[in-house]
Amino acid sequence: MIPRLNVLDVLDEFPALDRTMTASITANACYAPLFSDPEMARLFQTELTLQRMLEYELTLTKAFGEIGTVPSDIATDAIQKLSGFAPNIDKIGRATAIDGLPVPEFIRQLKAHVGEELAGAIHTGSTSQDLMDTVLVLALKDLSDLLQVRIEGLISTLTILRNTMGNNDLIGRTRMQAALPVTVFDRVTLWLDPLERHLERLTELRPRVELLQLGGPVGTRASFHGKGDEIATRLSQHFGLGNPKKAWHAMRDGIVEYAGWLSLVTGSLGKMGQDVCLMAQQGIDEITLSGGGKSSAMPHKQNPILAETLVTFARFNSVLIGGMHQTSIHEQERSGTAWALEWMCLPQMAETTGKSLELALQMVDQIESIGRG
Amino acid sequence: MIPRLNVLDVLDEFPALDRTMTASITANACYAPLFSDPEMARLFQTELTLQRMLEYELTLTKAFGEIGTVPSDIATDAIQKLSGFAPNIDKIGRATAIDGLPVPEFIRQLKAHVGEELAGAIHTGSTSQDLMDTVLVLALKDLSDLLQVRIEGLISTLTILRNTMGNNDLIGRTRMQAALPVTVFDRVTLWLDPLERHLERLTELRPRVELLQLGGPVGTRASFHGKGDEIATRLSQHFGLGNPKKAWHAMRDGIVEYAGWLSLVTGSLGKMGQDVCLMAQQGIDEITLSGGGKSSAMPHKQNPILAETLVTFARFNSVLIGGMHQTSIHEQERSGTAWALEWMCLPQMAETTGKSLELALQMVDQIESIGRG
Amino acid sequence: MIPRLNVLDVLDEFPALDRTMTASITANACYAPLFSDPEMARLFQTELTLQRMLEYELTLTKAFGEIGTVPSDIATDAIQKLSGFAPNIDKIGRATAIDGLPVPEFIRQLKAHVGEELAGAIHTGSTSQDLMDTVLVLALKDLSDLLQVRIEGLISTLTILRNTMGNNDLIGRTRMQAALPVTVFDRVTLWLDPLERHLERLTELRPRVELLQLGGPVGTRASFHGKGDEIATRLSQHFGLGNPKKAWHAMRDGIVEYAGWLSLVTGSLGKMGQDVCLMAQQGIDEITLSGGGKSSAMPHKQNPILAETLVTFARFNSVLIGGMHQTSIHEQERSGTAWALEWMCLPQMAETTGKSLELALQMVDQIESIGRG
Amino acid sequence: MIPRLNVLDVLDEFPALDRTMTASITANACYAPLFSDPEMARLFQTELTLQRMLEYELTLTKAFGEIGTVPSDIATDAIQKLSGFAPNIDKIGRATAIDGLPVPEFIRQLKAHVGEELAGAIHTGSTSQDLMDTVLVLALKDLSDLLQVRIEGLISTLTILRNTMGNNDLIGRTRMQAALPVTVFDRVTLWLDPLERHLERLTELRPRVELLQLGGPVGTRASFHGKGDEIATRLSQHFGLGNPKKAWHAMRDGIVEYAGWLSLVTGSLGKMGQDVCLMAQQGIDEITLSGGGKSSAMPHKQNPILAETLVTFARFNSVLIGGMHQTSIHEQERSGTAWALEWMCLPQMAETTGKSLELALQMVDQIESIGRG
Repeated sequence: MIPRLNVLDVLDEFPALDRTMTASITANACYAPLFSDPEMARLFQTELTLQRMLEYELTLTKAFGEIGTVPSDIATDAIQKLSGFAPNIDKIGRATAIDGLPVPEFIRQLKAHVGEELAGAIHTGSTSQDLMDTVLVLALKDLSDLLQVRIEGLISTLTILRNTMGNNDLIGRTRMQAALPVTVFDRVTLWLDPLERHLERLTELRPRVELLQLGGPVGTRASFHGKGDEIATRLSQHFGLGNPKKAWHAMRDGIVEYAGWLSLVTGSLGKMGQDVCLMAQQGIDEITLSGGGKSSAMPHKQNPILAETLVTFARFNSVLIGGMHQTSIHEQERSGTAWALEWMCLPQMAETTGKSLELALQMVDQIESIGRG
Repeated sequence: MIPRLNVLDVLDEFPALDRTMTASITANACYAPLFSDPEMARLFQTELTLQRMLEYELTLTKAFGEIGTVPSDIATDAIQKLSGFAPNIDKIGRATAIDGLPVPEFIRQLKAHVGEELAGAIHTGSTSQDLMDTVLVLALKDLSDLLQVRIEGLISTLTILRNTMGNNDLIGRTRMQAALPVTVFDRVTLWLDPLERHLERLTELRPRVELLQLGGPVGTRASFHGKGDEIATRLSQHFGLGNPKKAWHAMRDGIVEYAGWLSLVTGSLGKMGQDVCLMAQQGIDEITLSGGGKSSAMPHKQNPILAETLVTFARFNSVLIGGMHQTSIHEQERSGTAWALEWMCLPQMAETTGKSLELALQMVDQIESIGRG
Repeated sequence: MIPRLNVLDVLDEFPALDRTMTASITANACYAPLFSDPEMARLFQTELTLQRMLEYELTLTKAFGEIGTVPSDIATDAIQKLSGFAPNIDKIGRATAIDGLPVPEFIRQLKAHVGEELAGAIHTGSTSQDLMDTVLVLALKDLSDLLQVRIEGLISTLTILRNTMGNNDLIGRTRMQAALPVTVFDRVTLWLDPLERHLERLTELRPRVELLQLGGPVGTRASFHGKGDEIATRLSQHFGLGNPKKAWHAMRDGIVEYAGWLSLVTGSLGKMGQDVCLMAQQGIDEITLSGGGKSSAMPHKQNPILAETLVTFARFNSVLIGGMHQTSIHEQERSGTAWALEWMCLPQMAETTGKSLELALQMVDQIESIGRG
Repeated sequence: MIPRLNVLDVLDEFPALDRTMTASITANACYAPLFSDPEMARLFQTELTLQRMLEYELTLTKAFGEIGTVPSDIATDAIQKLSGFAPNIDKIGRATAIDGLPVPEFIRQLKAHVGEELAGAIHTGSTSQDLMDTVLVLALKDLSDLLQVRIEGLISTLTILRNTMGNNDLIGRTRMQAALPVTVFDRVTLWLDPLERHLERLTELRPRVELLQLGGPVGTRASFHGKGDEIATRLSQHFGLGNPKKAWHAMRDGIVEYAGWLSLVTGSLGKMGQDVCLMAQQGIDEITLSGGGKSSAMPHKQNPILAETLVTFARFNSVLIGGMHQTSIHEQERSGTAWALEWMCLPQMAETTGKSLELALQMVDQIESIGRG
C-alpha cells in the first residue's frame, strides 16, 4: 500500500522556483515563449521606463539652463551630478501604491541626489503626466519602428509564398462551404493586402501619437513662467517628437487610435491564422506545416499551434481595444481612473501585436505545401 | 375594499400600441427620442437598403449592356421593365431566415419581374456580398457626409463658446481633485481639438472605406468573362466609389477602422459629457444649463441628461467596437458569422455616433453660464 | 446608349417603404426574421412598458387606499378613473429626450387624467426608478419563463437526437485536428449538459433578480411616511416579486448576473453552432441538414445559416456582457449614465438569447444525418 | 554650453535593471505594488503550476497502482523515483512555443526521469487538458478561499464603519445631482449588501467549477481500459474536487460563470470607489481619507488613489469578461484558440479581483470622516 502522504512528500522536495508577481500567462515560464515578446515588453518595463524618466528630466534641466530659467551652471551641475544616479526602485514602487504613479518619489530621489542647492533645477513647472506620457510616447515610437520592420518582413515572406505557390489550386470557401475554385494567389492576397494598408495607416497616425507631453500641473504650460513653448520646442527636438499646440493630458484620441491600429494588425493576422487552421484539417488537407505541435496523448497529431495562437491574439486584442476606448472618457484635466486603465491595456496590446507578427512569420516559414499544384 | 381584479380590469382596457419587433431601446416609443437618430438610422433601413440593392443591379445590367456581355437592347429592356418593380419585402425577410441574407430572394423577384428572357441580364456573375457590401459602403459614405457636417457644427458652436466665455475661471481638476486655476478656454479646448483631429482622420480613411465591392462568388472577378475590371470601373464611377485592386469580401480592415473612428468621436464627446456632469454638481457649480431633466419625485432637480447620455453613448460604442474587431477574423473567402456580427454592431454604432453629436450640439446650446466671470 | 439618368429614374418610382427609426438590423424588414424575436422583444417594448407602468401605479394607489395613507375612496376613485386612460405616447417620448426617462411625463398625464383632487393618490412617495426597475424585472420574469421553456424544449430535442443517433461514429477533433473516434452521443452531450446547468443556474439566480423596486427618491423608503415596508409587501405580493431589504437602485449585481446568464446560454449554443459549421464542411461531411441557405451565385450550395448565426449571437452577447459589467459602476444613489447603458444592452441580449434558442431548435430539427451509422 | 551628448552619456551610466519579459503593468517594478497581487498571482505561476502538474501525475500513477492497471510495485517505484525530480523549465517553456502547452515536454521529462521500465506508469490514458484543467481548478479553489476571506474581512470593516458613522448625514445624489438627505448608513449599505450576495453566489457556483478533469484524449475516458471512473473517483477524492459525469474539456460554462463572478465583485467595489472619488471632491467634501496620493507638482493635493484604482479595476474586469464569454465557443472536443484565450484573461481577472479587495480594505481603513456628524 502506498501511504497517502507519499505524494505530498515528493512534492515537498520539489524545488522552489520563480516567484514572479504577476498572474499574466506571459510571466509564467511554462508558457512565456509562446505568449511573451521580450523585445516589445521591454519598451514598457522598469529599466527603460526609468531611463526615459531620467532622460526626460535631464533634458528638461538642460533646457532650463539654455533658456535661462535656471542659471546655466546650476543646470550643468545638476546634470553632471545625476551621472551617478541609481534609483531606489523598491521605494519607487512602494510609493506608487500611495501616489498612484512613480513620479513623485522618483523626483524626490533625484532632488535628494543632487542636493538642496541644485534641486530647483529639476522638474520645476512640470507634472508627473508630462514625464509619463512622454515616456509612453517614446515607447510607442520604438514600437512602431519595430512593428513596421516585422510587417515589412511578413509582407516579403508572403509575397515570396504567393510568387512561388500562387498557381496552386484551392477550393474557395464561403460560409465554410466549398464554393468555386480559387488559387493560392487569391487566398494569400487576402492575407497580404491588409498589411500594406496597415503600413499606410501607421504613417498617417504616427504624427498624432508621437507628441511631446509638456503641460505642467493642469496642462496649460502656465507653470514655466512664459517659457513653456520654448522649453517644449527643445524637448520635442531632443526626442524627435512633435510639439502639440495643447498638452494632451486629457485628450487621448491619439493613443486610442494607436491601440485600434494594433488590433487591426492582429485582426488581419487572426484571419490568416483561422484560414490556416481550417486548411490544416484532415479531410480538407490544403496546407502542410512543419514543426506542428505535439500532443501528450496522440503522437500522430500535428497541431497548427501558431495558426491557432494568431486567432487567440486577435480575439484578445479585440477585447482590450474595448477597454482602450473606455479610456477616452478622461474627465477634467487628468483622470486617474481612465489613465490607469490605459496602462493596464495598452502595453499588453503592444506585446500581443509584436508577438503575433513574430508567430505569423514563423508560421509562413513552416508552410511546406499549400493548395494543389 | 377594492377587488383584486380591478387593476387588471383597468389594464385590459389599455389600448394596444405598436408591436415593433426589436427589443432595442431605440425602437421603444417611450425612449426613442433620446436614443434614436432617424436620419442616421434610415441609412441602414429597409427602404434605402432595397433602393440601393436595386440601383446596384440596374447599374450592373447597364454596364453589361455597355460592355456587351449582354446585348445592349436586352439590358435596356431589363432596366426599363424594372421601373415598375416593387419588391415583396415580407417574402425577402422570410427568405433571409433561410438564406442568411436577402439577396437570393431579391434577385429571384427581379428575374421573375423581368421574365425569363431578360433574366440573364440581371446579377450574372455577381454575388450577394458584392451587392450588400456596396450598399453598406454607400450608407457609410452618406453617414460620413452627415457626421462631418455635425462635427463641423459642433466645432463652430464650441469655438463661439470658447470665444465668448473663454476668459472665465475654472478650478483645474486632476484625479477629480482641485488642482490649480485654469480658464474656460483651456477646458473647452480639450473638447474642441479632438474634433478637428477626427475630421482629419475621416479624410484619411474615407478612401479605404468607400470602395466598390465586385468580386463574384469567390471574390476573383473570374465570373465576368474577363470583363470584371471594366464592369467595376463603370460601377465605381456611377457610385462615386473607389475601385479596389482586389475584392474585399474577406478583408474588413477598412470597415473595422471606420467603426473605430466612430467610437473615437463618441469617446471625445463622452469626455465632454463627463466634464459637464461633474461641473454641474451642486457644490461644484461650474456650469448652468437650461432645459435640464425633471424628476418625478423631486421638482427642484435639474438633471444634466444630455451630458449623461454622451457618457452612456461613449461607453456603448466602446463596447461595440470590441465586437467589430472580432469581425476581422473573417475566415476564407466569406465568413457568415463574422459578417453577420458586423451587421449587428456597425449600424448601431453609426446611429449612436450621429445621435451623440446631435445631443452634444443641444447641450452646448443649453449652457447658460460656465466658469466664473 | 442608355442615358445616365435611367437608373435613377427607375429608382424614383421605387415605392416608399417603412421608416423605422432604429438602425438595428433587427428592425430592417429585409433581415428581421433571422435576427429579431418578437416574443422576446415585446417584453421590452412600448406597449408592455406602458401597461406595466400603469399597473405599477394602480397597484401603488390601491396599496395607499388599503393602508390608509390615502383615503380609501379617493384611491378607488383614482383607479376607476384610470380605466379610460390612454397615454399620449408621442409626448412621453419627447419628454424622455429632456428628462432622460418617460416617467415624469407619464405621471403628469396620469394626474391630469384623474384631476387635481385625485392626483395626490398617484405615485406619491415613489420615484421614477421604482417604476422602471419593477417594470424591467417583470419583463425579466416573463423572459425567464419563456427561456426556460425553450431550453427545456431544446434539451428534449437534443436528448432525442442523442438517443436515436448516438451510436453513430465521429472523429473526435482537438485543435481542429482529427484525434480519436468518438460517438455522436459524446458530441451531443457537450451540447446538452450545459443546458441543464443553465436551468440550475436560472433557478438559483431568479430570486436575486425578481425583486420589487420601491425606495422613493433616494432609495430609503423614507418618503412613505413610515408605511414603505407595508406598501412594498403589498406590491411584491401583487407582482409575485421578492421584497428586498433595501432598494437596489444603485446595486445592479442581480441584473448584471442575469445578463451573464444570458450570455452563458448563447455561448453554449454558439459552441453547438460552431461544431455544426465545422461538421458541415465538404471534406468533413459529418452532418447533413435540410433547409440550408441558398446562394445568389452558386445554386449547389447549402449554407448552414442557422449554425453560423448561433456563433454570431454568442459573440454578440459576449460583447454586450462587457457593457453590462460596466454598469456595475453605478455611482451614488442613482447613475443616469450606467442605468441608460443597461437599457441599451440588456434588452438586446434578451432578444438575442431567445432567438438563439429558437434557431438552435430549428437547426437540430433540420439534422438529417449526423456521424456515420 | 552643454554638449548634446551629455544627456545620453549620463544615461549610459544608468544601471541595467530587471528584464522581465512581460509588458504587463503588474510586472513593472515601478507600478507593481499598486497593480499586482503576489498572493493571487502565485496561484497561476510557474512554481505552483509545475508542482500541481506533478501532483496530478503522482496521484494518477498512485491510482493506477491501487486499481491495478499498473502493477502496484511499478507504480510505487515510479512515485519514489520522482521524489528527486526537478523539471527543466526552460525546456518546457520552449516546447510550449511548439506544442501550445507545456504538458508533452513535462511528461517526456517525467518519463525520462523514471526510466523506460517505469515510464508506462506515468500519464497513460490521460491527456494534456486533464492535467491542465485540474491544475486550473485547484488554483480557482484556492482563489475562492482567499477571496472569500477578503470579502468577509471587507464586510466586517464596512459593518464597523456603518455602525460607527452610520448616523452621519449625506446628501443623497441621483444623476450626480443633490437629491434628498440620506445617512452614511444608507450609502454604506449599497457597498455592503452586494458583498453578501457575492458570498452566496460563490457558494452556489463552486461545485460547478471545482471539478476534476479526467477524460483522456477526446474526453470519453475510453483510454483507461474501463477503469476511468474508478481512477477519477480516486483523483477527485485526493484533490477534494467533484467528479463530473462527463469531462468538461469543451464545456467551459463553469469557468466562464466563475469569471463573471469575479467581475461582479470588482464591479461592486468599483461602485464604492466611484462614490468615494465623488465624495472626496473639494466642494463636496463628504469624506476625508488619510494617506492620500501625492502629486509631483502640487504638494497640497491628497489624491484618492485607492478609490480611483477600484474604478479602474472594475472597468478592466468588465473588459476581460467579454473575452471570457468569447471562450464559450470552444469547438469540438478541444479548442486551442478558445482555451488559450481563457489563459490570457482569467488569471489577470483573478489577480485584479484579489487586489481590488485588498485596496478596498485599505481604503476603508483610511476613512477618517464620512458625512456630517
